[in-house]
Amino acid sequence: MPTDIEIARAATLQPVGAIAEQAGIPAEALHPYGKFIAKIDTDAIPGFHDKPDGKLILVTAISPTPAGEGKTTTTVGLGDGLTRIGKKTMIALREPSLGPSFGMKGGAAGGGYAQVVPMEQINLHFTGDFHAITSAHNLLAAMVDNHVYWGNGLGFDTRTITWRRVLDMNDRALRSIVSSLGGNGNGFPREDGFDITVASEVMAIFCLARDSADLEERLGRIVVGRTRDKRLITAADLKATGAMSVLLKDALMPNLVQTLEGTPAFVHGGPFANIAHGCNSVIATRAALKLGDYVVTEAGFGADLGAEKFFDIKCREAGLKPAVAVVVATVRALKMHGGVAKDALGQENLKALEAGLSNLTRHVGNIRKFGVPPIVAINHFATDTAAEHELIRNYCRNHLGVEAVICRHWAQGGAGAEELAHKVAALADEGEADFAPLYPDAMPLREKLETVAREIYGAAGISLDAKLAARFADLEAAGFGELPICVAKTQYSFSADPTLRGAPSGHIVPLRELRLSAGAGFVVAICGDIMTMPGLPREPAAERIHIDAQGHIEGLF
Amino acid sequence: MPTDIEIARAATLQPVGAIAEQAGIPAEALHPYGKFIAKIDTDAIPGFHDKPDGKLILVTAISPTPAGEGKTTTTVGLGDGLTRIGKKTMIALREPSLGPSFGMKGGAAGGGYAQVVPMEQINLHFTGDFHAITSAHNLLAAMVDNHVYWGNGLGFDTRTITWRRVLDMNDRALRSIVSSLGGNGNGFPREDGFDITVASEVMAIFCLARDSADLEERLGRIVVGRTRDKRLITAADLKATGAMSVLLKDALMPNLVQTLEGTPAFVHGGPFANIAHGCNSVIATRAALKLGDYVVTEAGFGADLGAEKFFDIKCREAGLKPAVAVVVATVRALKMHGGVAKDALGQENLKALEAGLSNLTRHVGNIRKFGVPPIVAINHFATDTAAEHELIRNYCRNHLGVEAVICRHWAQGGAGAEELAHKVAALADEGEADFAPLYPDAMPLREKLETVAREIYGAAGISLDAKLAARFADLEAAGFGELPICVAKTQYSFSADPTLRGAPSGHIVPLRELRLSAGAGFVVAICGDIMTMPGLPREPAAERIHIDAQGHIEGLF
Repeated sequence: MPTDIEIARAATLQPVGAIAEQAGIPAEALHPYGKFIAKIDTDAIPGFHDKPDGKLILVTAISPTPAGEGKTTTTVGLGDGLTRIGKKTMIALREPSLGPSFGMKGGAAGGGYAQVVPMEQINLHFTGDFHAITSAHNLLAAMVDNHVYWGNGLGFDTRTITWRRVLDMNDRALRSIVSSLGGNGNGFPREDGFDITVASEVMAIFCLARDSADLEERLGRIVVGRTRDKRLITAADLKATGAMSVLLKDALMPNLVQTLEGTPAFVHGGPFANIAHGCNSVIATRAALKLGDYVVTEAGFGADLGAEKFFDIKCREAGLKPAVAVVVATVRALKMHGGVAKDALGQENLKALEAGLSNLTRHVGNIRKFGVPPIVAINHFATDTAAEHELIRNYCRNHLGVEAVICRHWAQGGAGAEELAHKVAALADEGEADFAPLYPDAMPLREKLETVAREIYGAAGISLDAKLAARFADLEAAGFGELPICVAKTQYSFSADPTLRGAPSGHIVPLRELRLSAGAGFVVAICGDIMTMPGLPREPAAERIHIDAQGHIEGLF
Repeated sequence: MPTDIEIARAATLQPVGAIAEQAGIPAEALHPYGKFIAKIDTDAIPGFHDKPDGKLILVTAISPTPAGEGKTTTTVGLGDGLTRIGKKTMIALREPSLGPSFGMKGGAAGGGYAQVVPMEQINLHFTGDFHAITSAHNLLAAMVDNHVYWGNGLGFDTRTITWRRVLDMNDRALRSIVSSLGGNGNGFPREDGFDITVASEVMAIFCLARDSADLEERLGRIVVGRTRDKRLITAADLKATGAMSVLLKDALMPNLVQTLEGTPAFVHGGPFANIAHGCNSVIATRAALKLGDYVVTEAGFGADLGAEKFFDIKCREAGLKPAVAVVVATVRALKMHGGVAKDALGQENLKALEAGLSNLTRHVGNIRKFGVPPIVAINHFATDTAAEHELIRNYCRNHLGVEAVICRHWAQGGAGAEELAHKVAALADEGEADFAPLYPDAMPLREKLETVAREIYGAAGISLDAKLAARFADLEAAGFGELPICVAKTQYSFSADPTLRGAPSGHIVPLRELRLSAGAGFVVAICGDIMTMPGLPREPAAERIHIDAQGHIEGLF
């Protein structure tokens, strides 16, 4: 089979105007970026806000392993499958981050015959959204230090400035710096550092804002530091929000592209799935719901993190009501969860497969706790055996009461996902979903975290020191008690130990740190190490990336 | 009169496709960015490279003063004037830098009725070129530190790493930092810092490259540091150039916009006019010459810096042959050069005006040293008197042998620059130009600087210490002796003292530092302080910039 980039290049793309027309978007609402990408001004679509909403389908996955699951690929394949069976379908995906493209090889626009295109542009600067977010974030940072420089009227305790800087680049040298060196003219030296742009709170805000007014309000609530008497200082106090909104004005319009089979797809926003909620923008999802009868979207990491945050943060904040959740698994990954080493995954191993199904079982059960009906998609690999498929199908039917559908969209495009499409559409149409978040807004913050740990992770509870207990109390006292919790922990296990595959139970989730994202509207509970600025590997992909003699980009994918 | 932004908003823009058609660019060559901006793929224009070149007109100015000259405004007005008198005209301008927009109020897309539009987009992210340059620059920086981190195979002496990082932001806190703090995993701590993106050598390279192959070669020649035995280490040694080229691939296509009167304009590239050459991209200028019979372009600062570098660096490198140079002046600025204080510029003062003409005289004479015929444009202000205009016209005719034309494009658009257009076109058509750079490639570097100082600045010579004399010798020995000199000095005076207005003579130009820009292809001679990362003022424009209730951007211009 040809490579992803060969497939993408061989495709004949439709002009973005034709894709827009198919989605019911008139030419007046289109702001083209090249021939195959456009930003959409939904206010220019007649009657847009009065249209009924389509059905929202979440694609999530088992706990990730090095074997891979293919969540984005399945999202695209399912979208194409739905289109093929005659459903008016929209896809909503996250934008890839530029920085990591130069580290490890690999794009983030699907794979095989289930891709969104044009993949080079999507994986590179695209429509500049992340650059706009970088600029808005760093403008606020510059205004913090500038304020201190010119007299510090707001009274910053400069040791407490929490607003770091960002770049869309894997650059470990910038993780921890001392800034404002070099003399009086450069300000007051202090400890600072850079995160990658996707880790910016501005990215999370961008993805949760309902519209530009909501965006500006949220930006204003960003806490950048505090005074010596512990009063919080916000972006609004610095009068930074108007200029930040101006920088984000065009970026806030969702980006329309197409799958290889011409299904319209919004690719918009891409917050980190650890210190943020890891889903595409609310604006894109809501726009897709107005345009499609079925909307297929995804959330980062496995369902314990991705789906939980999708439900408890994104759907709660945006009033979304998901109809179905597709849990993606592969035979290979399930065998890994059952204890098989990576180099032995090509061999049939029914015993390990059955053991590994414990991971899928937990995720399926978790989905149901939100009142959303699950369905399992097995993303087919060439090494899968018929017996393995049969085992999964029977187990799911008999023990979990869900369908498990073998999907071949990677090799066959939408045709390989038709069965899944039929079943997902039927499940959505049954209207069995009765979505509710896991916990109410009014539950105290600490209890919210304990609830997620027990109900979703199968933990016995959480551990925390007295300082963190006091921090919970401080956050409640400061009026942030109604916010949902955004857990940052390893995606590889239900526990905080990445080596514990399958479905560990009775473990303790160790809380290490609490961070307030007042603008995004959640409290981040960090359980374990989290990396907010990646580094490049010994031999970065950047060394191989180049433009070939035909003008094609090579080495990026 | 309405403000710039009110004028720009009231204008009815033509679709970019119509502007392109007028310029002879077929739809296939257009990569639209919204409705009014497009990147142009010149390879998709049939017979493009075989077209004859139009005539190149440089707009430059007297030494700038706080009174203002209106160089960009005159460039736009002259372009519109040429269009009005029936000449097939293209304009080529620099892209504005984003960072300074949030510091001091003011856009950089012309003014009054002589503007390029859409001004909000041009002044904000535009087509993302500067973001692409920021990414390419910082990728190289990350690869330098990553190389050291993973074993330092090339043997960097980390004290000698000269490749800083960049952001398109006014942020003094980043001028001088210590990076890679925080432990082993973050690398080896060292002194580092950020410049503003326009100061990046990648920006200068971008603007001097003839095509993508030349771009990649130049990127490869960037010197990032050296070994302990003083061997230079380049971007090519780090295998960074392919990935940098990929990041710059789309950006390299020139951006087409329009003036308020529909003259097509390329706005592409914008290197600093101090540590770089301060002109729009060679690619845009050459493309404009293929498409227009007359091409109007500009260069940064006054003619001693801007025109000198345009001729000695850009024209030399790109083989351009300018036909005419327009020297812009205002009555007000000439009076300032004659000693009048800013608050008294509204009163007629013929004596001061005559004294101030010494500055214009020197610039006009300098232009002639390059074999290019000059003409003077007086950018009309409401406070000008008829007697002042008469004095300038007579002085120019009788003492300088040039025409001085009063221009009213700011208030009247192209109609106010018709007389200038007729005279510029006639001068260009006479074919009197016989361009040659001021000095030959083979002249030693130090002599090149001395030649510029004597011939252009009216200096008695240069001063330098033994270390700098040795540095000249080192650069010659390392094979960089053939490069032109790029002088960084104050733009406010022919001398290195910004308070010396008019035409000081016999002064000494103090050389402070030499920097090699091996990729851009020049040696920077720094004479005085240069600021490569601006700061924000006490009350930054960012505090007032916002989106109003009608969705308009306010406060940016």
